[in-house]
Amino acid sequence: MSDSFLLTNTTAATMRGEGYGLIEDAAIAVKDGRIAWTGPAADLPGQYAALPTRDLGGRLTTPGLIDCHTHLVFGGNRAREFEMRLEGASYEQIARAGGGIVSTVTATRAASEDELLQTALCRADTLIAGGVTTVEIKSGYGLDRDTELRMLRVARRIADLRPIRVKTTFLGAHATPKGTDPDAYIDDTCIPALKAAHAEGLVDAVDGFCEGIAFTPAQIARVFDVARDLGLPVKLHAEQLSSLGGTRLAAHYDALSADHVEYATEEDAAALAASGSVAVLLPGAFYTLHETQKPPVAAFRQHGVPMALATDWNPGSSPLGSLLLAMNMGCTLFGLTPAEALAGTTKNAARALGLTDCGAIAPGNRADLAVWDVSDPAELSYTIGITPLHQRLFGGRA
Amino acid sequence: MSDSFLLTNTTAATMRGEGYGLIEDAAIAVKDGRIAWTGPAADLPGQYAALPTRDLGGRLTTPGLIDCHTHLVFGGNRAREFEMRLEGASYEQIARAGGGIVSTVTATRAASEDELLQTALCRADTLIAGGVTTVEIKSGYGLDRDTELRMLRVARRIADLRPIRVKTTFLGAHATPKGTDPDAYIDDTCIPALKAAHAEGLVDAVDGFCEGIAFTPAQIARVFDVARDLGLPVKLHAEQLSSLGGTRLAAHYDALSADHVEYATEEDAAALAASGSVAVLLPGAFYTLHETQKPPVAAFRQHGVPMALATDWNPGSSPLGSLLLAMNMGCTLFGLTPAEALAGTTKNAARALGLTDCGAIAPGNRADLAVWDVSDPAELSYTIGITPLHQRLFGGRA
Ligand SMILES: [Zn+2]
Ligand SMILES: [Zn+2]
Repeated sequence: MSDSFLLTNTTAATMRGEGYGLIEDAAIAVKDGRIAWTGPAADLPGQYAALPTRDLGGRLTTPGLIDCHTHLVFGGNRAREFEMRLEGASYEQIARAGGGIVSTVTATRAASEDELLQTALCRADTLIAGGVTTVEIKSGYGLDRDTELRMLRVARRIADLRPIRVKTTFLGAHATPKGTDPDAYIDDTCIPALKAAHAEGLVDAVDGFCEGIAFTPAQIARVFDVARDLGLPVKLHAEQLSSLGGTRLAAHYDALSADHVEYATEEDAAALAASGSVAVLLPGAFYTLHETQKPPVAAFRQHGVPMALATDWNPGSSPLGSLLLAMNMGCTLFGLTPAEALAGTTKNAARALGLTDCGAIAPGNRADLAVWDVSDPAELSYTIGITPLHQRLFGGRA
Repeated sequence: MSDSFLLTNTTAATMRGEGYGLIEDAAIAVKDGRIAWTGPAADLPGQYAALPTRDLGGRLTTPGLIDCHTHLVFGGNRAREFEMRLEGASYEQIARAGGGIVSTVTATRAASEDELLQTALCRADTLIAGGVTTVEIKSGYGLDRDTELRMLRVARRIADLRPIRVKTTFLGAHATPKGTDPDAYIDDTCIPALKAAHAEGLVDAVDGFCEGIAFTPAQIARVFDVARDLGLPVKLHAEQLSSLGGTRLAAHYDALSADHVEYATEEDAAALAASGSVAVLLPGAFYTLHETQKPPVAAFRQHGVPMALATDWNPGSSPLGSLLLAMNMGCTLFGLTPAEALAGTTKNAARALGLTDCGAIAPGNRADLAVWDVSDPAELSYTIGITPLHQRLFGGRA
């Protein structure tokens, strides 16, 4: 059958164990869309020798990439705002011209489900062309029940229409709609919308934006309490622009991840290590916003906090559509090693989504794979703005 | 005939006059691979009305992009060195492991013409897929006569094998080979190699690297004197890491461009304005090397120095393969406006190569065009790591 075969003549960055988990001259046996066996070709068990063989010409194979933090569904774009800022407009002038997150909320609310789907599919296609096999997609540009649910429905439909796995995250606590009290918004809109979205089966995880310009830890905790009651895991935009305690709050709720975390402290790192949460680093937003405070990578290493990297693809602070470029930025801007960068878009990204069947080339895992026209895995992080993807397999299928 | 047609239903960023030179609902008449007419469709002269029409569906058309500063031909790559540095190796350790420019010189010398051609074609294909229709390619990794000439022959062959225009630049004065005296290298190797390359018709311009770690203005001047005698225009890597007087030297020789120029002063800007030279900004190297001194964009604007942007694609300081990403970096890192960024990869890039028949959508120019899946030209600079190219025309041909 077409999704059972043997990949040969490849260097496999399995991402098992330390570093790349590199196997030179590897073979990867795929049966029914799952990885049955991987190891040095010389050790191939006889039972796989009869599978149809695909010679990869010495290329590198990695797990399919996982973009574990995106805001892929939205209306409009903010190119004009980007231009106004560079032409010298003040934030006030931009706000008066309808800019900022408000403009995205307005455009998203105004868009039909099909309109949102068309533009989101286009973005998903860009990620797919970059070797991504799993993507997380958040709501959060509706800030009302109907639009939040519409965004999540669009996210689910992407997985029906394209060969990519989608994990949805409810991010009602992203911003407060204009003219609304934040506490009232959390209690009267956000939490009811979460319950409704969950009832429709639209929610895989719950997120919030804990920041001076967004919500306090106490407000986020009210949302997380509901998530816990519903049996949903949580994640949090925390410590991006200031140190507010969001990371420790996330750890307290055994979050899958704390994201951004530029202002996280050593204590925060210890808390994440204790809760087993992933630190998701988002260098695209750091770059776009001209931030200077880097995430505490040394503390994360020291405490054994798994680090992931994601595009944070969104129309305001990170219109970044390449996960490989996020890897290069993770190295160049944050000092990650290329092996950490690849772990950050494979095994640790899987963990940040609560997935245990992808992110590594290991028996039993889905055959989500990327084959690259490079020989050394460091090249994936080293080049800038180049996508040397040779082939992508999703559940064993091209 | 296939290269005579009428493009309709497009927004044209003609890059004529100030800013984008935008024409909404434009028509572009192409005859025999050249632009015959462009303007609002409503004003189309009757003589073009019978041309076969191609409806661009409201998309944006720009001049084909021009990458006016690359080192596209080289052997090896430096991914392992990138990795070693991030793993904490010192520059000395990297040098002992054979890293730095020396490793590229060694790999380039060891490569045959066909080997160099294969990898360079791969890079050219990446640029072509990004909408580039003209590319400049420098020598400079041979540092001996045979290899410098081999690099330039490879550059010329790219134009025979791919639909892209190539301008070659002799950069013998890039570095001094190990164990050689810089003055002796300039006089005994670099200048004779330049004369030999010119005699073979391989040289469109002459460049040098004027820097503390490379050559002094006096050494560069000896090379430029020979270029002048040969009737060749010059350009210069100047003021990248320190202020050494290279920019004024370039201006004195009426250089096509001074490149990098992070440490250029207001006086340097005035000198470039007087000589009509272009300031070529290279944000990829600035980003990769973690530089903090930005080029004096305000002074360039004030003195009317045309600014270009290029990838500087090279294996050490800028393994950047996307000119759109160079535009985003020009905006985000250097504060250019999106209109300046697009001028920097079209009309000002043409000028930095001494070309007068491309870089703008204007009657008489080559029909080198890029059609983009965007509506607003600011989107080209706003997005990061995305290439929304719909179609590329080279001399009117797809
Ligand atoms: Zn986010
Ligand atoms: Zn250069």
